[in-house]
Amino acid sequence: MKILVAQRNPIVGDLDGNTAKILESMEVAKKKGADIVMFGELTLCGYPPEDLVYHKTFLDSMELHLERIVKASKGLTVIVGLIRRNLDEGEKHLLNSAAVIHDGHLLGFQDKWLLPTYDVFEERRYFEPGKKTQIWEIGGKKVGLIICEDIWQHAGYVGYSHYERDPVQALIEYNPDVLLNISASPYQFQKPDVRVNVCAKAAKTLECPVVMCCQVGANGQIIFDGYSVYVNAQGELCQLGKGFAEDAMLVDLEAEMCPVPFSYDAHSNLLSALELGVKDYFAKCGFKKACIGLSGGIDSALVAYIAAKALGAENVLGISMPSCYTTSESARDAKLLAENLGIQFKEIPIKEPFDAYLHLLVPHFDGKEGDITEENIQARIRGVILMAMSNKHGFIVLSTGNKSEVALGYSTLYGDMCGGLGVIGDVTKTKVYDLCRHINQVEKREVILQSIIDKPPSAELRPGQIDLDSLPEYGVIDNVLEGYVENYLSIDEIAEKYKIPQEQVLDLVQKIHAAEYKRRQGPPILRVSKKSFGVGRRYPIVQRWL
Amino acid sequence: MKILVAQRNPIVGDLDGNTAKILESMEVAKKKGADIVMFGELTLCGYPPEDLVYHKTFLDSMELHLERIVKASKGLTVIVGLIRRNLDEGEKHLLNSAAVIHDGHLLGFQDKWLLPTYDVFEERRYFEPGKKTQIWEIGGKKVGLIICEDIWQHAGYVGYSHYERDPVQALIEYNPDVLLNISASPYQFQKPDVRVNVCAKAAKTLECPVVMCCQVGANGQIIFDGYSVYVNAQGELCQLGKGFAEDAMLVDLEAEMCPVPFSYDAHSNLLSALELGVKDYFAKCGFKKACIGLSGGIDSALVAYIAAKALGAENVLGISMPSCYTTSESARDAKLLAENLGIQFKEIPIKEPFDAYLHLLVPHFDGKEGDITEENIQARIRGVILMAMSNKHGFIVLSTGNKSEVALGYSTLYGDMCGGLGVIGDVTKTKVYDLCRHINQVEKREVILQSIIDKPPSAELRPGQIDLDSLPEYGVIDNVLEGYVENYLSIDEIAEKYKIPQEQVLDLVQKIHAAEYKRRQGPPILRVSKKSFGVGRRYPIVQRWL
Repeated sequence: MKILVAQRNPIVGDLDGNTAKILESMEVAKKKGADIVMFGELTLCGYPPEDLVYHKTFLDSMELHLERIVKASKGLTVIVGLIRRNLDEGEKHLLNSAAVIHDGHLLGFQDKWLLPTYDVFEERRYFEPGKKTQIWEIGGKKVGLIICEDIWQHAGYVGYSHYERDPVQALIEYNPDVLLNISASPYQFQKPDVRVNVCAKAAKTLECPVVMCCQVGANGQIIFDGYSVYVNAQGELCQLGKGFAEDAMLVDLEAEMCPVPFSYDAHSNLLSALELGVKDYFAKCGFKKACIGLSGGIDSALVAYIAAKALGAENVLGISMPSCYTTSESARDAKLLAENLGIQFKEIPIKEPFDAYLHLLVPHFDGKEGDITEENIQARIRGVILMAMSNKHGFIVLSTGNKSEVALGYSTLYGDMCGGLGVIGDVTKTKVYDLCRHINQVEKREVILQSIIDKPPSAELRPGQIDLDSLPEYGVIDNVLEGYVENYLSIDEIAEKYKIPQEQVLDLVQKIHAAEYKRRQGPPILRVSKKSFGVGRRYPIVQRWL
Repeated sequence: MKILVAQRNPIVGDLDGNTAKILESMEVAKKKGADIVMFGELTLCGYPPEDLVYHKTFLDSMELHLERIVKASKGLTVIVGLIRRNLDEGEKHLLNSAAVIHDGHLLGFQDKWLLPTYDVFEERRYFEPGKKTQIWEIGGKKVGLIICEDIWQHAGYVGYSHYERDPVQALIEYNPDVLLNISASPYQFQKPDVRVNVCAKAAKTLECPVVMCCQVGANGQIIFDGYSVYVNAQGELCQLGKGFAEDAMLVDLEAEMCPVPFSYDAHSNLLSALELGVKDYFAKCGFKKACIGLSGGIDSALVAYIAAKALGAENVLGISMPSCYTTSESARDAKLLAENLGIQFKEIPIKEPFDAYLHLLVPHFDGKEGDITEENIQARIRGVILMAMSNKHGFIVLSTGNKSEVALGYSTLYGDMCGGLGVIGDVTKTKVYDLCRHINQVEKREVILQSIIDKPPSAELRPGQIDLDSLPEYGVIDNVLEGYVENYLSIDEIAEKYKIPQEQVLDLVQKIHAAEYKRRQGPPILRVSKKSFGVGRRYPIVQRWL
């Protein structure tokens, strides 16, 4: 039996476009002599469609597109993820499902059992859990079919939930010849190998090979990394789909396969994820060009590098917007970086509007001393300039805040927080440094200037300012982020684990909560960690805990 | 049997403060000779606590506070909403529950059966449904106890879901003497009487009186309106808690009660909701003063009125920021309105920074014609000025966009969309007019100047501009909002129902989807309708449906 694992990049809501991709892969499958072609979870409508599923016409249209797929399935078995109406009793009217189609006929549906409702997932909002365990007889083989989360519980990798059912366990009595899993499993740092382990665990339990078809591409803040999986009955990895690209992987269950190693560089992978995130945001929204405020600092340098990779250097404009507090080194570094990357470059100093604001506003400041107000005005002027270039020339502004800043609100709302997409808002400052060093290593030249990497981080909004004046070292901040935001450790546990004074941990945690109002108005953030501030984390703005 | 219905206003996460309120009400109950004191849903931790519940110390602390309440319960039965750990098997580790406490002892818990997971509710994210139907023997009576949503399914008022269980129906066999419901049921326009109907329906089914204790107060975007309910066994309303204020309503089940009418003015109610929303946002965050950009238009006039009511006129600053496109009427009306309201007033013309930006940027505009860029710069200058006054003097900026604008993105991101709170972002333009007329009627004077009500809506960002240049009439827009956003009607259905050309409906619907990216960065919005853009509506930014 041959299975074509069609690892595709659907667009949410683009039923026509996604169907075209499905039909195209079906033709490829026929040409390659595949018996089955399988697609990822919700490939027909894209994942996650959110409240679009409440529209009756959206569901009607999905049914019509399914009919087109069924008609085109002559001589082939097709397994495709979609949403279907729940015709039985149940709390929710919809099911997250896989249509099983064979040779021009719809054989039936396999519904998803385990509905993740935590972090970025909200499937219980829309879907009723599947109820029926079944085995599919295809080409003389007993095929088990499950959807994404269905396979994770068995390997003990599910967070925030413990489902009462274990679909892998439930299939044991059916003695399947192969287990298929269709997935939309988002990328996160160092997650790809976990997915292989999860498949291996199911293979060992069921003593049969497992084929997992993954989604690839970015839909908004969520990035899918591909890496479809084929493990043999011993749980050994035999084939792996491409990372961060569409793929058509032909699995031959009868062929003798040598186990292959799965090694990848975690930082290269993270960069690929961010590039794909930017690329797909632009491609799927129909944008071409990006502009970025280049401060001469490391965050904007990294974002400019990623944008140039994702969109082509010629489509990226870096704008340096020096003030009287900008050091000559920073202004120079911004320019040199743009040259290194080959992107367009402009210098637009902010003195004129800054003076105009001060002249206008100082009489209304009632003689109060200079403070954060004047700092924020500078950051907001830069925001206005970037947005003006965006409005006039069609550039999309990329926001350059890193996760450590986003966490603490060390940024100006409507200022440096402006932008259509927060490219590194889920990358800690520590990782920003790691990535920049990695880039220079991989590119074998000083793409990110060493002087940018070496200078102490500073917002340069007042004379001689550096971040360390108002913040602890980023290593400390990033440890607290790991402990508190990613792992929900208590103040005591964090203090003990990372050897940080308790008062400092509490102060940082309070800052994280206090910045909730800023983040609520920040740009969408590409999610690459276990817990991102952009999506999947929900805290009240108005609250008094801690 | 006497029941004190303690309609309180808890703060999310404020376990100490909320416990103090609970203990205080327990003393009141004792003084008034009540047998039972009941509180609203999750009164101990505030509703909705969101991801705070993932913190172990938060749950531990809740248990300690419960112990304090148990100790203080001598001579009294206390029913209080809280979160408890799920010690049984189950998908989720927590239960939304009511502790039943009697005379110094914790009798047990009544868990919530029906967990709303739609619109603003995401209870399946955190909670496991309750499993046990039981009756509580209190003071010789059989007391049925259920939580919020548990009572709604029976009356057929649940949206997006159809639960398999009906807790009211399940209680029939226990033949309760009274049914208690503890609620956190958010306000929406014309909803208060629905709540009475829902209680009446349960009373008739169970042939016993129903007492519903409601939460009051605003937690972020969600407003609770109070109006606790006591209906007799015939389903007749006998007592009603205060609207929009804390209350301690003593229900005597043995007393002969004449049915009371429940009539309220829907617009007065809406105003009260918005005032409470502003008041609690400030009080619970520890803010005192607000500033508002006064354009001389109707939206900012309404917001200034609400702010003055909520915070005291002396704590509100209106800032008129005229440009060369501001008509003298608008500038005059802004000033007169401030005088009418008795709020502080400043005029800060934006010419200087506008000229500075144009001088700086025009060389970078490559000879392109004036367009929306220059309009947005003006709006963003106003944003910078408001935020500067906020930073320097501690005013919180109130955003003045109405729902019709928010829907279509007829607003400038980082400009007039600036603000800590979107006061009328869930009030359509049609309702804005209704409310202003209502205010003048109630106040028996022209608080909102007639000239403000009469002038054609305009952003005044270019010569002679009026909204009608780029938008259909607001009546048309608001019909499409009702049809598409609130009721998920199709393009065809909307066109037919409201007699609007199909192309116009489609165009407006596409604009609604296209503005998703703006709304994602807009301020939190006080929710007062069936479907708000601020919370409870989730659509992808990157999508191609319609």
